[in-house]
Amino acid sequence: MPTLVQKFGGSSVANAERIRRCAERVAAARADGHDVVVVVSAMGDATDDLIELAATVNDQPSKREMDMLMSTGEQVSTAMMAMCLHAMGVDAVSMTGWQLGIRTTSAHRSARILSIDAERMRRELRSGRVVVAAGFQGVTDAGEVTTLGRGGSDTTAVALAAALDVAKQGGMCEIFTDVDGVYTADPRLVPTARKVPQISYEEMLELAALGAGVMHARAVMFGEKYGVPIHVRHSQRPDTGTMIIEENAAMEENPVVGAALKADLGRVSLRRIPNTTGVQGSIFAAFAAANVMVDDIMQTELGDMANISFTVEHSDLADVKIAASKVLEELGKGELAVEIGLAKVSAVGAGMKSHTGVASTMFHALGAAGIPIQNITTSEIKISCIVPKEHGKAALQVVHDAFGLGQAGGGVGSVSKSASGA
Amino acid sequence: MPTLVQKFGGSSVANAERIRRCAERVAAARADGHDVVVVVSAMGDATDDLIELAATVNDQPSKREMDMLMSTGEQVSTAMMAMCLHAMGVDAVSMTGWQLGIRTTSAHRSARILSIDAERMRRELRSGRVVVAAGFQGVTDAGEVTTLGRGGSDTTAVALAAALDVAKQGGMCEIFTDVDGVYTADPRLVPTARKVPQISYEEMLELAALGAGVMHARAVMFGEKYGVPIHVRHSQRPDTGTMIIEENAAMEENPVVGAALKADLGRVSLRRIPNTTGVQGSIFAAFAAANVMVDDIMQTELGDMANISFTVEHSDLADVKIAASKVLEELGKGELAVEIGLAKVSAVGAGMKSHTGVASTMFHALGAAGIPIQNITTSEIKISCIVPKEHGKAALQVVHDAFGLGQAGGGVGSVSKSASGA
Repeated sequence: MPTLVQKFGGSSVANAERIRRCAERVAAARADGHDVVVVVSAMGDATDDLIELAATVNDQPSKREMDMLMSTGEQVSTAMMAMCLHAMGVDAVSMTGWQLGIRTTSAHRSARILSIDAERMRRELRSGRVVVAAGFQGVTDAGEVTTLGRGGSDTTAVALAAALDVAKQGGMCEIFTDVDGVYTADPRLVPTARKVPQISYEEMLELAALGAGVMHARAVMFGEKYGVPIHVRHSQRPDTGTMIIEENAAMEENPVVGAALKADLGRVSLRRIPNTTGVQGSIFAAFAAANVMVDDIMQTELGDMANISFTVEHSDLADVKIAASKVLEELGKGELAVEIGLAKVSAVGAGMKSHTGVASTMFHALGAAGIPIQNITTSEIKISCIVPKEHGKAALQVVHDAFGLGQAGGGVGSVSKSASGA
Repeated sequence: MPTLVQKFGGSSVANAERIRRCAERVAAARADGHDVVVVVSAMGDATDDLIELAATVNDQPSKREMDMLMSTGEQVSTAMMAMCLHAMGVDAVSMTGWQLGIRTTSAHRSARILSIDAERMRRELRSGRVVVAAGFQGVTDAGEVTTLGRGGSDTTAVALAAALDVAKQGGMCEIFTDVDGVYTADPRLVPTARKVPQISYEEMLELAALGAGVMHARAVMFGEKYGVPIHVRHSQRPDTGTMIIEENAAMEENPVVGAALKADLGRVSLRRIPNTTGVQGSIFAAFAAANVMVDDIMQTELGDMANISFTVEHSDLADVKIAASKVLEELGKGELAVEIGLAKVSAVGAGMKSHTGVASTMFHALGAAGIPIQNITTSEIKISCIVPKEHGKAALQVVHDAFGLGQAGGGVGSVSKSASGA
């Protein structure tokens, strides 16, 4: 039987009773004959509790020490899970990041996995043990403990699955979480949203970037890079969830797989700046240095001048304004304009590549609903419209309906229909 | 300035405020020009909390997993201490057992330190950092996390001081605790007990074995083996505490340095057993296998038969009875007798080696107080008397007074006096 990597998030292992339920799933997979690696996050609010604890002695704790502190959360979970499995008669051994041979960069709190030495893990699996792996952590070549940043346990799980080459044997990485899969839209905003049975890595990445927070982007990228099938499913329910896999012919039949909303955006415009070669690089380097996440960028030319505008999260606006003012000062020219109260509604689907009329369907539907479109950006598999924030939720519902995402079978029919009318 | 190893126990680092007070002592030592290694235990009740947590998933957790779980307690403390030092402007780096290069045996929960690779620690000290070391933990050659058992942080501190050769530079190991030193007797039982300014390793070991719980025996043995001066002092008070050092001429002037009481003892007698060669070995192997701590052993011969009796803690009596019954069954001969309600009062002092009359002083004093002596055992630097439990506390006070331990200068005078009358 193929090897399974099963990842349980923090809320799934928040207490003894929940750990027991997760352990039962592990035991069932063992009973079916699978080799199993379990990846666990810190129990419940443990990570937040540790962050609060740190704040009691230092309001700007060093990242290196934060990693030292926070990595204990997952270590506790691994020991608890291993003990729980023992109590059920399942042989198991807990392993920390350094015991797992997870080498990372030295960027504390947001380290990247460089390599995994799976030797010990393979040895433990061969001897019939379940490996209980600490998610979210690794070690540098200098022997320093690192963490991968929030959501890093997903990345650990997919990376371990890649290191063990589970796909070759028909295995996969199961991400157990508190939702039962990927939806055509956030069900809290769109009551008719449906669970998607399968989705491509690329589509999942676009949705993750749009704030559909089922899985972290880095984990999906790892899955794509190493071809690890990822099954996102509910930790307390037996149902099948969503498979994140390579794009296939069936997927291309649906031009749109999901819709997403980013509310609370602001737009920053640098107007009438000198349009010299390389100016864009200098400008966005300044925003990167200020740790601002810049969303869609638009540029228009006016002779030797240019207007550059981009969207950012409201919470980043204060930092952006400071950085932008500095940029203009250095350029010696240009004006700064900031708008708030915007939202972005997007449609995502690998099938867009081979379908026409997707954009017009979306624009028509928004127009028919009386929702003004302030900006449009597109990628190969995504169309996004900036709309006034007060229309955000309605816009999401409109787009969801326009592509028939709430109906069994989804997308195809509605797009053909709309496309013919476009 | 010489290197100092400063160890702070769990109650000394129980919360942010206390950590801050400890960090101030570290900062003061740095300001004086010392290189400093800080060894910390888990915060407050963290270890007990983790043991309770384990019990929620497994009532007989594996020792290996318990070590994995419990070692997080000290890791949290090190990060907290390092962050607190940073907030005070003191450069510091936390280190786990494996980062400290503390190699141990693989006896989980009671591992012994085999060696310490101090290279990284020296490098950090050279670069001007305070090393904040996790007490109580180490790593096996196979890369497994171990703990040294309760009180293991003391051992870590002394072992690190030995590995850094602090004695050669005039440095020492400071054990900060919630008492201000070693006393001539437990001050809760003997109000006139005084703090002892210095005591030899050997005396401290005898007192530790008698339940004077200021420091754990293994840590003292490490200190003796590697000649590490140990300063036991109060974590929240500036006063000098007690120096545990090599025996010196001044110490020999005091025949007795302290008195101790073990209350709640039982006596187990195996009577009329065959006195064959090697029989004792087999008997006590059986008790060791049952994890019973056997106290003083006495044997008397009756032709080809022997009586063997020994004292044990009351709490061990149930286990002892089971083990003893098995032993007698295997011997095919002999009777078991168990007495309870005993106590042991002891006088300890390196000076006994060169003073006469110490034993008679003690016996006279107990006799004069109407306290019956049921058994006597001695070592080179200790005299112990078994007395009825109800006389225990009085016996301790009598012995303490007999050697003048409550008076400044202590012992000498009173023994000379008693010795002359013996």
